[in-house]
Amino acid sequence: MTLLLTNEDADEILTMNECIDALEGAYRDISRGIATPGGRSVMVSETGQGDGVYALKMLGGIVPSLGVGAIRINSDILTWPESGGGMRRVKLPKAPGGRWVGLVLLFDITTGEPLAIFPDGVVQRMRVAGTSALGVKYMAREDATIAALIGSGWQAGSQVPALCAVRDIKLIRCFSPNAARRQAFCQEMAAKTGVEMIPAPSAEAAVRGADIVLCATNSVGNVLYRDWIGPGAHITAIRDGEIAPAAIAAADIVVIHHPANLSADHIDAPEGLTIPDQSREATSRDELKDLSGAPVLADVIIGKAAGRNSDADLTCFLNYHGLGFQFAAAGAAFFRKARAEGRGRELPTEWFTEDVHP
Amino acid sequence: MTLLLTNEDADEILTMNECIDALEGAYRDISRGIATPGGRSVMVSETGQGDGVYALKMLGGIVPSLGVGAIRINSDILTWPESGGGMRRVKLPKAPGGRWVGLVLLFDITTGEPLAIFPDGVVQRMRVAGTSALGVKYMAREDATIAALIGSGWQAGSQVPALCAVRDIKLIRCFSPNAARRQAFCQEMAAKTGVEMIPAPSAEAAVRGADIVLCATNSVGNVLYRDWIGPGAHITAIRDGEIAPAAIAAADIVVIHHPANLSADHIDAPEGLTIPDQSREATSRDELKDLSGAPVLADVIIGKAAGRNSDADLTCFLNYHGLGFQFAAAGAAFFRKARAEGRGRELPTEWFTEDVHP
Repeated sequence: MTLLLTNEDADEILTMNECIDALEGAYRDISRGIATPGGRSVMVSETGQGDGVYALKMLGGIVPSLGVGAIRINSDILTWPESGGGMRRVKLPKAPGGRWVGLVLLFDITTGEPLAIFPDGVVQRMRVAGTSALGVKYMAREDATIAALIGSGWQAGSQVPALCAVRDIKLIRCFSPNAARRQAFCQEMAAKTGVEMIPAPSAEAAVRGADIVLCATNSVGNVLYRDWIGPGAHITAIRDGEIAPAAIAAADIVVIHHPANLSADHIDAPEGLTIPDQSREATSRDELKDLSGAPVLADVIIGKAAGRNSDADLTCFLNYHGLGFQFAAAGAAFFRKARAEGRGRELPTEWFTEDVHP
Repeated sequence: MTLLLTNEDADEILTMNECIDALEGAYRDISRGIATPGGRSVMVSETGQGDGVYALKMLGGIVPSLGVGAIRINSDILTWPESGGGMRRVKLPKAPGGRWVGLVLLFDITTGEPLAIFPDGVVQRMRVAGTSALGVKYMAREDATIAALIGSGWQAGSQVPALCAVRDIKLIRCFSPNAARRQAFCQEMAAKTGVEMIPAPSAEAAVRGADIVLCATNSVGNVLYRDWIGPGAHITAIRDGEIAPAAIAAADIVVIHHPANLSADHIDAPEGLTIPDQSREATSRDELKDLSGAPVLADVIIGKAAGRNSDADLTCFLNYHGLGFQFAAAGAAFFRKARAEGRGRELPTEWFTEDVHP
C-alpha cells in the first residue's frame, strides 16, 4: 500500500530532533558520496488569468542509507506584492477550497514503489529549519544564548524549535514588519518552546548583540546588514538576498548549502515574463560568485571543513535553494514513524504503478 | 476532484491523431515562446540490493495554451543485460505485483490544482511516437510508402500507428533480434493498422530501399548504419546512439528535438557508480556536439526552418530525451477526453493540496 499522509500527521508525529537527525545522516551520506543531492527545476509561465505567474517546481534526491528517493513538487500561483516597505513573494491559494499545492512523493530504491504521498508544508519547513539548525550546531558558538529572528511567518515558526534543539537559547528577539503579527508570533512560540520571545521594533534592534541571527522571510530584498553584526555571531538565511552581500563578505567563514545552488541554470521561463525573484537572484548571484568554492555544510558536519575557528569568528551559513535529498531524509523519518504508528490512509500501490515497461 | 486514470483508459480513449494534434499545438507554442519546454533531471544511486541501479527521473513542462503543466516521474530499477548480440537497457518490474513505476501528474496553471494522475506507460510511448510522426510529417517525402522499423517492443508498437497517421504507408519491414517476437509483432501490428508488415531477417534487410526508417529500441549500441541508407530517405531515432554518427553526419538535414537535450548536465550520479547508458551517451554526445546549432522540430513545424529541401535529401530527426511539455500536451488531451467521457476514479483534490503556505 502507498501511504497518503497529511500535514497534521507530520506536525503531530515528526519531532524536530528526528528531522534534524535524519538530515544530519543524509548530509553525512552526501559527504561520503553515496547520496544523490538531486536535481532542481523551476518552470514558469503566465497563468492565463493576468494575475501573477504560474510556477511548477520540482526537486528530487536519493538517500541510499535510508533506502528512499523523493520528489517534491510545487504548483504555485506567485505574486510579488509590496508590503511593509518591501516586496514579498506570495503564493496565492487558488486550488479548490483556497488551498496551495505542494506534494512530496517518496519512493523505495529497492523496488521503485511509491511508499508515501504527502503535502510538503510541514515537512518542507522542518527540513529548512532543521538544516539551519545543523548550521547553528556546527558553526555557532557553543555558549550562544541570545538569538534574533527576522520573520514571523510559516518558515519562522519552525526555526524557533529547531534552534532550541541545538543550542541552550535563553532569549529570542523577533522582528517582522507587522507589529501585531510579531507580537502574536512571540506569544505562540514562547508557549510552544518555553523560551523567552521578545518582539523587536526593528530588525536592527532584534539583531544587535545577538549571538545567532536567523533570517526566515519571504522578502525579495535584503533584511540583514553588515553594520548590525559583530565578531562571534553566527548568521543564516533561508532565501538568497536576505543577507546583504557586504554582511556575507564580512564573515570569516561562509558555508553554503550546495554549490549547485549558486548556478542560475535551473530556471526555465519564456522570454518576456517578469519574475522579480529571478532578476534579484541573478544580481546577488553575480555579486556572490566567489562563493562557488566555499565549503559546504555536509563537509562541515563530517569535520572536513571548519565551521568556526575561534569564538571571535563571524560565521555565515547560506541555507537557500534546498535540494531533494532533504525531502528524502525527512520524508523517510516521517514515513517510518507514520507506518509504525498506523497513521495515514492506505491507497492501493497499483494506482501509482503499471504493468507495462515504461 | 483529481482524476486517477489508467493505462487502459489512455489506450482506449486517446487516439494517435488526437495525441499528434496536441503535440503539434504544443510545438507551435514552443516556437512562439509561450510554452515552457521544461527541466529534466535524472538521479541515480545503488539499489542496496546489488542488482542494477536505482534511477529517479523527473521531467516537467508547461503548455499555457492548453492551460496545464505536467510532471512525469520514473522510479526505475535499471539493468543492462546482453541480448541478441548487444546490450539493452531493461527496467526491472520490482514494485508489488511485478510492476513498474512511472507517473504523470497534470496541473491546472490557473489554480495550481492537480487535475489528474496517471501511469506514464501508454501516454509516454504515444508522445514519443507522435513526435516521431511529426518529424515524418514535416521532413519525409510526401510520396513515402515503404518504411523500416528497427525494434518490436513497447515503443515500436506505437510507432506503427503514428507513422500511418501522417503518411500513406503501404509496407513496413520490421527487424528485431528475436525472430519469434518480430514475427508476432508484425502480425499484431498488421491486424491493428491494416498495413502490410513483413519481418526482416536483419536490420540491413529491413532498411535498404525504405523511404522512412524508424529506430525504436532499447539498444545501447548503434542499430542503423550509413551504408544502408540512400538519398531521399528520412531516418529517425528515439534513443541517443541508435543511429551511428556517420549516418547522422551523412544527412543533408538534421533536426533535433531540443538543444537542452544535447547537454549532459541533467544526470546526477554518485562517483564510482557505473551507468552504461550514461557513458555511452557521453561519448556520442561528444561526437555530435556540432549539432547544438541544428534546427529544432518546433521551428520546422512552423516553417521557420526547412525539414527537407528536395526529394533527394537524406533527412534525419533525432527524437531523443523528450521534454515535459510533451506530457503536458498529450496529458491535457487525455484528461479532457477522460473527463468528458466520465472515465477514471475521482479522488478528493484535498488529498493533494494543503491549507498552509508551502
